[in-house]
Amino acid sequence: MRKYENFSEWFDDVLFNAEILDYRYPVKGFAVYKSWGWRIVREIVKMLEERLEASGHDPMLFPVVIPEESFAKEGEHIKGFQMEVFWITHAGDRKLARRMLLRPTSETAMYPLFSYWIRSHADLPLRVFQSVSVYRYETKATRPLLRMREFLWNEAHTAHKDWEDAERQVREAVKIYNDVFRRLGLGFLILKRPDFDKFAGAVYSLAFDAWNPDGRVNQIGTVHNLGENFAKAFDITYEDIDGSHRYVFQTCYGFGVSRTLAAVISQHGDDHGLVLPPEIAPVQVVVIPIPYKGVEKEVEAYSREVYERIKDAGIRVQIDENEKMQPGEKFYHWEMFGVPVRVEVGPKDLKERQVTLSERVNLKRSRVGIEEMIPAIRSLFVRITEDLAERSLKTLEEMVINTQNLEDLKSVIEKRRIGRVNWCEGLECAERIREGSGGEIRGHRFDVEEQPDGPCIACGGEAKRVVYVARAY
Amino acid sequence: MRKYENFSEWFDDVLFNAEILDYRYPVKGFAVYKSWGWRIVREIVKMLEERLEASGHDPMLFPVVIPEESFAKEGEHIKGFQMEVFWITHAGDRKLARRMLLRPTSETAMYPLFSYWIRSHADLPLRVFQSVSVYRYETKATRPLLRMREFLWNEAHTAHKDWEDAERQVREAVKIYNDVFRRLGLGFLILKRPDFDKFAGAVYSLAFDAWNPDGRVNQIGTVHNLGENFAKAFDITYEDIDGSHRYVFQTCYGFGVSRTLAAVISQHGDDHGLVLPPEIAPVQVVVIPIPYKGVEKEVEAYSREVYERIKDAGIRVQIDENEKMQPGEKFYHWEMFGVPVRVEVGPKDLKERQVTLSERVNLKRSRVGIEEMIPAIRSLFVRITEDLAERSLKTLEEMVINTQNLEDLKSVIEKRRIGRVNWCEGLECAERIREGSGGEIRGHRFDVEEQPDGPCIACGGEAKRVVYVARAY
Repeated sequence: MRKYENFSEWFDDVLFNAEILDYRYPVKGFAVYKSWGWRIVREIVKMLEERLEASGHDPMLFPVVIPEESFAKEGEHIKGFQMEVFWITHAGDRKLARRMLLRPTSETAMYPLFSYWIRSHADLPLRVFQSVSVYRYETKATRPLLRMREFLWNEAHTAHKDWEDAERQVREAVKIYNDVFRRLGLGFLILKRPDFDKFAGAVYSLAFDAWNPDGRVNQIGTVHNLGENFAKAFDITYEDIDGSHRYVFQTCYGFGVSRTLAAVISQHGDDHGLVLPPEIAPVQVVVIPIPYKGVEKEVEAYSREVYERIKDAGIRVQIDENEKMQPGEKFYHWEMFGVPVRVEVGPKDLKERQVTLSERVNLKRSRVGIEEMIPAIRSLFVRITEDLAERSLKTLEEMVINTQNLEDLKSVIEKRRIGRVNWCEGLECAERIREGSGGEIRGHRFDVEEQPDGPCIACGGEAKRVVYVARAY
Repeated sequence: MRKYENFSEWFDDVLFNAEILDYRYPVKGFAVYKSWGWRIVREIVKMLEERLEASGHDPMLFPVVIPEESFAKEGEHIKGFQMEVFWITHAGDRKLARRMLLRPTSETAMYPLFSYWIRSHADLPLRVFQSVSVYRYETKATRPLLRMREFLWNEAHTAHKDWEDAERQVREAVKIYNDVFRRLGLGFLILKRPDFDKFAGAVYSLAFDAWNPDGRVNQIGTVHNLGENFAKAFDITYEDIDGSHRYVFQTCYGFGVSRTLAAVISQHGDDHGLVLPPEIAPVQVVVIPIPYKGVEKEVEAYSREVYERIKDAGIRVQIDENEKMQPGEKFYHWEMFGVPVRVEVGPKDLKERQVTLSERVNLKRSRVGIEEMIPAIRSLFVRITEDLAERSLKTLEEMVINTQNLEDLKSVIEKRRIGRVNWCEGLECAERIREGSGGEIRGHRFDVEEQPDGPCIACGGEAKRVVYVARAY
C-alpha cells in the first residue's frame, strides 16, 4: 500500500482493513461506519462538542425532514441547494400533501423555531448546535468519507443583536475549529472564499482546507456570516432596549466530521495503515505479551499487571492475549489500526521490571521501568501529537508553491500541489485560472494578511489578493 | 399542573416549561429536542451504550436510507411495515431509478452487510448496535415523545451459531435493559407478547411495558428472537467446524430512547415539574446563594467555595448567581427542571460552615457541615434513585388489578388501570377482550412464572395464561 503512489487505492485499503467504513452498502454514496471508524468519530465529536459547550453553545436535535415551504424561504439558499436534495413524496401507500426534503444543512429546519425563541435582546446571543448526518445528492463521483451523499457533521447556528457581535462570533468559531483541528495534528489553510464560492445565503464564507496526499484539498470546516439574510426570510426579530424591533444577525458554521476523519487518515496514515492522534484513538495503548519458553506464565502475569496499571491510570488500553497469533502478527494488526503506543512485555522486561514502548508514528522503541511507565506514556502522547502536527504542517508548507504564470500553475496542479498566486479579483480571470490550470481559486488567507507581490496571474493587471489554487473534493 | 387529573396537559406543559421538546416544528410528528431534553437523552444513551459495549456489542452506524429491494426481502417484515414507511422518490429535479425508504428499523439495512461479514463460526457471535432516529408514518394521533414519526432509539442486532445461543442472547438483552431501566427507577412489566402482536419477522417478541399515569402502557423496549427468518431472506450463512454451511440464528432488540425519556418524566415528575434520577440529570446539584444584608459578599464567596468543592468531586453542578431573581424564584425554576439536589447557602450556613441540602423528589431538607457535604450528596444520590424506584414500583403494583369478568375489566381499563386476567390463548377471545374492555392483551410475564387461577375471562374455557390487559401508546 503506497500512500503517495496511488492515494485512492491506499485510502480505500486503509478504510477497509482498519475497519473504518464498509462501502458495499447497496445505495451509492451511503456507507456503514464500522466499529473502529465509529469509535474514532465519537471521540472527534466529543472533543468538538465539549469545546462548543464550554463557549456557550447549547446542544439540541432538529428533525431530519424539512417542509418544502421552509426550504424555499431564502431565495439564494434554495437556488444553491435545490439540485442536490432528496425528496420524500410518499408515506405508506399515500402521496403526501406537501413533499419534504432530507436536510442538506439545517438553516431552514432551525430558523422557524428561532423566530419563536427570540423575543427580546435578553434572548441574545442564541447559540445552538447539533451533530447529525446530512444528505446531499452529489452528482460528481462519490468517494468514501470525502464525498458521500450521507455525511456526518456538526453544525452550529447563532443569532446576535448586531453585525459586530456576529463578527465576534465568526472569530470565535474560527478559533474553536482551529484549536480542534490543531489538536488532531492537521495541516490546513483558513481561507476566505471568493464571493462566487460562498455559502448559499451568506454574506461571506470562511473555510478550512486541509491538504491531501493527492493534492486535492479537503474542506473540513466552514464558517459563514449570514448577516440579516435569513432573519428577513424567517422573520427573526427582537425587541431592543429602546423598544424598537430589529432583525437579528446570524452566523452558522459546520465542522465536517466525516471529512475530518478522512483528513486524519490521509494526512497521518502511512504504508503500514492508520496513525491516530492519541486523543481520538479508541485504543490508545495496546499491551502485547512476548511469551518465552519456561516463563510463559510469568510473562502473562506481568503483562496483566502492566495492563491493569495503564487501565487504572484512565488510559484507553487493551491487552492482546490471542494465543493463535504470533507477536509479529499482532504488531502488524495494531499498526494497521493506528494505535499510538504499543507496550511489549518480554522475558527481559519481566526480569528487569521494565517495558518496551513502541510509537506508531515513527516506529521508535524505548524501554522504561514499570514505575516510570505511566508518565512516560503520557509524555509520549503529548510528543506524538506535536510530531504529527509538525510533520503535517511541514508537508503543507512544501505543498504550497508560488507561481507567476498559468503555465507554471498548471504544472503545479498536475504535480498535486497547491498554487499560490496573485489575482485581480475579476470573475473572468478566475475562470481563466480554472480553465488554464485545472485548479480552483479557494480564497485568500483569513488568519494572515498577505499582500500581492506582482500582477494578476491571468490578466497581468493590478492584483488585489494572494489566493490559493487547488483541485478540491 | 395536575399530573393525575389531566395527564396530557400536564405532560405537554412539562415538556415545554422544562425545555425538553418544542413541538411547534412545522411537520406533524416531528419535534425539536431542546437543550435540557437533549442532554438527558445523551446521558440515557451513554448509560445504555456503556452497558452494551461492556457485554461485547460493537457500536456502528448504518445509513438512514434502505433500498426497496432490501426492504422487500423478508415477507412478514415488509407486510408489517410497508404502510408506515416514508419514501424517497426524487433527488434534485430527477426521479430516482429505485425508490428508497427511511429506516423504520434497521434489519434490512444491516443484514445485507451481515452476509458479507459472516463467513465462519469464528465470526460468531456478531453483536452490533446503533443509536439513531427511526421513521414511522404513524396514522394514529401523534403525541410528543410517546408517539412521533421520528423517534430516538438504540437498536442492537446479533447473529449466532444456533438457536440456543440466540436464546442465551435474548436473556442477556433482557438483563441489560432491565438493569438500565431499574437504574432509571422505572416501573414496568416484562411481557412475552401474544403471537398476533409480535414483531414482523420474529419468532417471538418480548417487551418492556412501563406504566403511565393515564393508564396507557408505554412500550419502552423490545427483544426479539428472529430465528432463521432473516438469515434465509438475506442468505446469512457460516461454515461450521465440520465444514457444513448453516444459516445463522438472529436476535434484535430496541431500546426506546424517546419513550424512556417519556417514562422518566411521567413516572417521576410531579406537580412542580420534572424529577430526574441523579445519574441522567444534566445538572445534578444546583447551588443557590441566599444573600443577607451585610454579609452579601461573604455568602457569595462561601457559595463559590461550596460550588468548587462539588465540581472538584466530579459532580455535574451549577451555581445560580443570577442577581435579577429571588432565591424563591430560583427554587421554583430548578424544581421545574428536576435537578435532584439543591444546595442552599445562607447566612446561617455561612456562620456555621454548613450547607442546606434539599431533595427534589420529596422536597425534604437537611443540613450538613461542609466537610461532610460530598459524601452526603453522594449518599443522597443513591437514596433518591432507590426512592424513585420504590415509589414507581408501588404505583405499578397498585395499578394492576385482578379481574374475573369482562364487565369488571372494562371498569378497570376505564379507571386507568391494568387488568390481570386468565386467557385461553384463543384469538377470538383476545378480540372479545379488546372489544369488551377497550384494552389490549399485552402478554404474559416473561420473568415470573404465573399460573391461571380460574377460567378464561372471555369464553370460560380452560385458561392457559395469565395476561395483562391495558390501553397502550
